[in-house]
Amino acid sequence: MVIEILEKGLEAVEDQLASVVRSDISVLEDASLHIVSSGGKRVRPRMVLLGYLAAGGTDIDSVVPLAAAVEMVHTATLVHDDINDHSLTRRGKITVHARWGRTFALLTGDYLFTKVYELMAPYGVEPNIIIADACTKLVEGETLQAAAAKSGSMDRETYKQIISLKTASLFEASGRLGALIAGGDEETVEALAKYAYNLGLTFQIVDDILDIIGDAEAMGKPTGLDISQNRGVAMAQNGGEDVKTAVVELEIEEETDPFKLMMQNLRESGAVEVARFQAEEMSRRARQALAHVPPSEARDELENLIDLVLERDH
Amino acid sequence: MVIEILEKGLEAVEDQLASVVRSDISVLEDASLHIVSSGGKRVRPRMVLLGYLAAGGTDIDSVVPLAAAVEMVHTATLVHDDINDHSLTRRGKITVHARWGRTFALLTGDYLFTKVYELMAPYGVEPNIIIADACTKLVEGETLQAAAAKSGSMDRETYKQIISLKTASLFEASGRLGALIAGGDEETVEALAKYAYNLGLTFQIVDDILDIIGDAEAMGKPTGLDISQNRGVAMAQNGGEDVKTAVVELEIEEETDPFKLMMQNLRESGAVEVARFQAEEMSRRARQALAHVPPSEARDELENLIDLVLERDH
Repeated sequence: MVIEILEKGLEAVEDQLASVVRSDISVLEDASLHIVSSGGKRVRPRMVLLGYLAAGGTDIDSVVPLAAAVEMVHTATLVHDDINDHSLTRRGKITVHARWGRTFALLTGDYLFTKVYELMAPYGVEPNIIIADACTKLVEGETLQAAAAKSGSMDRETYKQIISLKTASLFEASGRLGALIAGGDEETVEALAKYAYNLGLTFQIVDDILDIIGDAEAMGKPTGLDISQNRGVAMAQNGGEDVKTAVVELEIEEETDPFKLMMQNLRESGAVEVARFQAEEMSRRARQALAHVPPSEARDELENLIDLVLERDH
Repeated sequence: MVIEILEKGLEAVEDQLASVVRSDISVLEDASLHIVSSGGKRVRPRMVLLGYLAAGGTDIDSVVPLAAAVEMVHTATLVHDDINDHSLTRRGKITVHARWGRTFALLTGDYLFTKVYELMAPYGVEPNIIIADACTKLVEGETLQAAAAKSGSMDRETYKQIISLKTASLFEASGRLGALIAGGDEETVEALAKYAYNLGLTFQIVDDILDIIGDAEAMGKPTGLDISQNRGVAMAQNGGEDVKTAVVELEIEEETDPFKLMMQNLRESGAVEVARFQAEEMSRRARQALAHVPPSEARDELENLIDLVLERDH
């Protein structure tokens, strides 16, 4: 029952994402549809819809634009990330940057941001304050990550701050807003926000693990990219191995591919196991938060979502 | 009297712009303050404040965040424009792009966009719909301009569409929102929106003229940049001269600087005079619209603003 409502809601989100980017300026529409219709896990809109249902909401259509908006925030940042990372593939397709060039990719990302406003405007003051705050944090997280990559070092504390800002904040906003709009009581709203925040942390740590051990084809994007930007170095340091030193040494031995060896080194350092342990800890916190949400089919689905996030292999 | 209120309001806008970009991520705060505090004509916030006063508003503080928001939209697009245009100077200072590099410039522009949300959120549904629409049009206009530059040709109709989308729409939103929040009656709101829209067209045409004939030092940015991107070509065609052909010929004669000669050619083509004529026509429409606004000191100031926009030399 809840699953059918959820699936119908997610279909409506797809329709909304595709229709809201229509434009007389064909390159904007084409580039937007290219990224918007390229699939993706849709975990943020899922959070909104299930949060809404778990907090007692009964009119799923009322949160479809909101669910589309949080996915749109994420999508806009992907387009801009791919410019900064010089990425060629995303979700198994060519990136907007690679296909339309930097200028149009930059403008497409901006365009998608304006569509977040458009989708959010009808929700009034409080939801817009929450989304604005999450967007600010997201950009701060991306910036902190870029600054760490540039400095060539990242400690554990910074890694945690980055994933909290760039990923968990938008997850939190998704869970909170779904529950708020359902008219959930304060305890339920806070519990769903806390659940979503910790699920976001879990999601990002798993993502960074998959960047190290995942299969590029299944991921639909090159792996090892994030690690080359020092994101994984914090993980490696958790594993007690100084990977950066290893890389420097490897660059001297020119007969080997330093990047491949760094990856292998990282896999063997124990860093992945430490990160895995942390992801499981965050997922436990998400599960604990759910205990403060009244039991329902939707809550069961949110519990299943934890396992899906933990166990995904792409 | 009104002038003092206006000046006080503009000072409050400056304070708001500087305080809203505060961030724990120092590069974001530094880069944002760099562009936000670099002056600029503040013509959009001026539109909001005077529109508010002319429509009978009496609490100027209530529109200061809105006035800051429209300036922030403009500022965010400047930061992204300078990436795409590879510009080194803006308002007489080094650009964010040149100083902090492309990655941080892109993120700073995104950050400033999130601050638009933050500033706008408290205004509720209708103002947010209007701003969202203006932002979308602005990005569409920028994209159309980039597409025209890439195609190497721009007819008069496209030029008009570009300046309407990228400049006049945000002006229109500024005038409309100032008047709306003042609680102005429908005729006054529409008149101020129409005034602002036509003032925006005037402003942009004058800007493009200054790009051809202006002094780079007084402008605080390189001149001729826009023309090199075909923006001025439409003006040239209005002047009846096929400038592009001239450029192609000049590129063959390698002993001359084709860019300088194109500029000179354009200056001599009569295009500037035609554009000037159009700017005056748009300013007349702005003035006519003002006739539907009840007389007041603020309306007088809006009338003065037309002359300032028409007569500025930088």
